[in-house]
Amino acid sequence: MKIRIFVTLKNGVLDPQGKAIHHSLEGLGFSGINDVRSGRLIEMDVDDNVSDNDIDAMCRKLLANMVIENYHIEKVSEGADT
Amino acid sequence: MKIRIFVTLKNGVLDPQGKAIHHSLEGLGFSGINDVRSGRLIEMDVDDNVSDNDIDAMCRKLLANMVIENYHIEKVSEGADT
Repeated sequence: MKIRIFVTLKNGVLDPQGKAIHHSLEGLGFSGINDVRSGRLIEMDVDDNVSDNDIDAMCRKLLANMVIENYHIEKVSEGADT
Repeated sequence: MKIRIFVTLKNGVLDPQGKAIHHSLEGLGFSGINDVRSGRLIEMDVDDNVSDNDIDAMCRKLLANMVIENYHIEKVSEGADT
């Protein structure tokens, strides 16, 4: 089973990396960008018997810093090629 | 318009960060994990008149290192709350 975990900064938490990307994009001549936020993506291939609770626990214990970050878990169907 | 850009390492490129996460998860007692790959997530809020070509160019010029990374662009509908 393939899963994707998105870890994003909570609203209100400063994101200097996002700000730097925003600034660089404007420096390259791109306009119309209102906001950029950076985050992490973790793709995992786990056995089918790994429960949703286990995946949730992985996020809480290691992958996300719950003080400043949110996480979102998405299961990828085997047929999808992205 | 909100867009999400996923930047992932190409197949075959070594991913020490993913390996470290994998190892740490096993150290925490989680089993059944076959593979972990790390990547980046960039969330952008752009004007509706920014074209797909522009977004593609942003990825190629700044956000992804095309030698070792792939990117995938996803548009988020305004109604979705994730």
